[in-house]
Amino acid sequence: MDHPENDAQYAGLAVNKGIEQPPIVNPYLKKMRTAKRRSFTASEYVEGIVKGDTSILSQAVTLVESNLYEHQTLAQEVIEKCLPHACDSVRVGITGVPGAGKSTSIDTFGLHVLKRGGKLAVLAIDPSSERSKGSILGDKTRMEKLSVHPNAFIRPSPSAGSLGGVARKTRETIVLCEAAGYNNIFVETVGVGQSETAVHSMVDFFLLIQLAGTGDELQGIKRGIMEMADGIVINKADGSNIEKAKLAQAQFRNALHLFPPTPSGWTPQVLTYSGYYELGIAEVWDMIDKYIAFVKKNGYFDYKRQEQAKYWMFETINEQLRDHFYRNPQIERMLEEKQQKVLNNEQSSFMAAKDVLDYYFDKEK
Amino acid sequence: MDHPENDAQYAGLAVNKGIEQPPIVNPYLKKMRTAKRRSFTASEYVEGIVKGDTSILSQAVTLVESNLYEHQTLAQEVIEKCLPHACDSVRVGITGVPGAGKSTSIDTFGLHVLKRGGKLAVLAIDPSSERSKGSILGDKTRMEKLSVHPNAFIRPSPSAGSLGGVARKTRETIVLCEAAGYNNIFVETVGVGQSETAVHSMVDFFLLIQLAGTGDELQGIKRGIMEMADGIVINKADGSNIEKAKLAQAQFRNALHLFPPTPSGWTPQVLTYSGYYELGIAEVWDMIDKYIAFVKKNGYFDYKRQEQAKYWMFETINEQLRDHFYRNPQIERMLEEKQQKVLNNEQSSFMAAKDVLDYYFDKEK
Repeated sequence: MDHPENDAQYAGLAVNKGIEQPPIVNPYLKKMRTAKRRSFTASEYVEGIVKGDTSILSQAVTLVESNLYEHQTLAQEVIEKCLPHACDSVRVGITGVPGAGKSTSIDTFGLHVLKRGGKLAVLAIDPSSERSKGSILGDKTRMEKLSVHPNAFIRPSPSAGSLGGVARKTRETIVLCEAAGYNNIFVETVGVGQSETAVHSMVDFFLLIQLAGTGDELQGIKRGIMEMADGIVINKADGSNIEKAKLAQAQFRNALHLFPPTPSGWTPQVLTYSGYYELGIAEVWDMIDKYIAFVKKNGYFDYKRQEQAKYWMFETINEQLRDHFYRNPQIERMLEEKQQKVLNNEQSSFMAAKDVLDYYFDKEK
Repeated sequence: MDHPENDAQYAGLAVNKGIEQPPIVNPYLKKMRTAKRRSFTASEYVEGIVKGDTSILSQAVTLVESNLYEHQTLAQEVIEKCLPHACDSVRVGITGVPGAGKSTSIDTFGLHVLKRGGKLAVLAIDPSSERSKGSILGDKTRMEKLSVHPNAFIRPSPSAGSLGGVARKTRETIVLCEAAGYNNIFVETVGVGQSETAVHSMVDFFLLIQLAGTGDELQGIKRGIMEMADGIVINKADGSNIEKAKLAQAQFRNALHLFPPTPSGWTPQVLTYSGYYELGIAEVWDMIDKYIAFVKKNGYFDYKRQEQAKYWMFETINEQLRDHFYRNPQIERMLEEKQQKVLNNEQSSFMAAKDVLDYYFDKEK
């Protein structure tokens, strides 16, 4: 702990030397806890998860999120054993720029869903989460109602890493949660990066939260996200803001009209609501219910889930093929040099690529 | 040649045996031609290209398109030697669904561009071109004016293959054309597949041709393409169709208003024109000129070209890493089996991927 006592400005904040708490009161405690956790076998984890033990579920998620090789091996065994226990679930991806009111909305949506029974898990994907600590879901207290609800399980984004890695961990966490009987899954993203595509590849319904206005608040939303949405909902439709929200609704409806039809055959809806004042929440969820009924009837629900499972298998393969290549220090050095040659027009992009690949595959032999 | 003489229906089409032409009149001719072509060295190709010899340019493009190893090696040498000779060019990607009038439009746009001097190369990307022979640019005569213009070079899409392969060949052809002094490059796509992203990654301006109407004609356009466009132009704005086109223009303008800003800082424009009656052509090209001036001034033009060069280097690497893996017959068999396990929920997507990867990397050692 820094002592600001020498800084006159902070004189009042000075802490007397010697009375601050040491970082770990009992140095053995941490070791004991770790030892205890490691003693679970895969079957014990699965048993606990299927019983709905949230403490064991939490520990299993921590295992999934760990980058240690031994944890990963155990985690994969747990996931595989959980697969047959998956409950019938509905997975909803929720995105929107910072300031759109995602946390309040998820809090309100979640409570609405829980009133109908069942359980809810709220997960997140934010590959930047280590840098921007707490940007999304970092602070559970931002979901005041859900964080104290016995049937809600909230888990922040796995900490920073490649998007593929972070997304994979979230998708694996979905498997654990579904085995634990969480039949409603929300996956939150921050709406400004590549993570939306990843979320889109693991949910049944993709909800985009927007704000009314002249377009300035669209600044942060990445191009292409609007066309991914199965539903666009305009938040803060309350008080003097209602008219603006209704206008935005009409504009978005017109815009969606110009988009090509969705592969599901569903026509994306545009609704207004207020997360804070809890207005229009039932209507938003009616839309999602209708969508689920629609795609279950026309077969798209199962088709999409199967496509997603395949997608993640191939995505994992492609990512690891790339990792194996790009994390090679010699390849890294070569790429740096080749890239410069390409930018200087001294070599074509293709010859540069070929040279590095030739080196790589030669070395492998 | 089949003889339909035994089929009564085709009796009138019968060819008397012995008088039909043999497939090759002079069996040495083909050999001689091939021999002649092969005798060019890379430097000779480059010399011919830089002089603007269209016959040698055509032959070099054929070399680029060839899948033979020896051709590829020579082609890469030619491309590399052409790089320093690239002229200052403007590359425009043009897309639109079949029926939007792409060929007629390109014919008219091209003639307009050529009136201002310089030369024009019209290329295409259509990974399905072998299947749907002639779907785009297969028939040069569809561009009546350009096909007889001395300063226009029209080249159909390289024949079918992976999108990456087809796109790579088109991008390499751009290098050759620019070395030959073609300072205007059009790259056409069919607007219904993945190829638009590839085209977007090799052009300076991306033009989307649309039709006026109630939305039915959007059926074919892939989601996400609209947000890639730097300009949307509504064709067939002539006669009784003008009002409908103007309405569509207003609708598209409103829709674009809701999109987030483009990375270039440019606001995409929506214009109407008639390719057939040559109305509004100058306005469309004014827009492109303005865009080029705008991005040259703010530095985005060079930035984007550099990003594209890097993109193609990494894209080539990633594609070949994937090819090396997926074209392995044993891997193919394993994947088939693993995919089924994933779909049956017997294995997680990640474990399935891991098993195949472990096998692959073990074998490589």
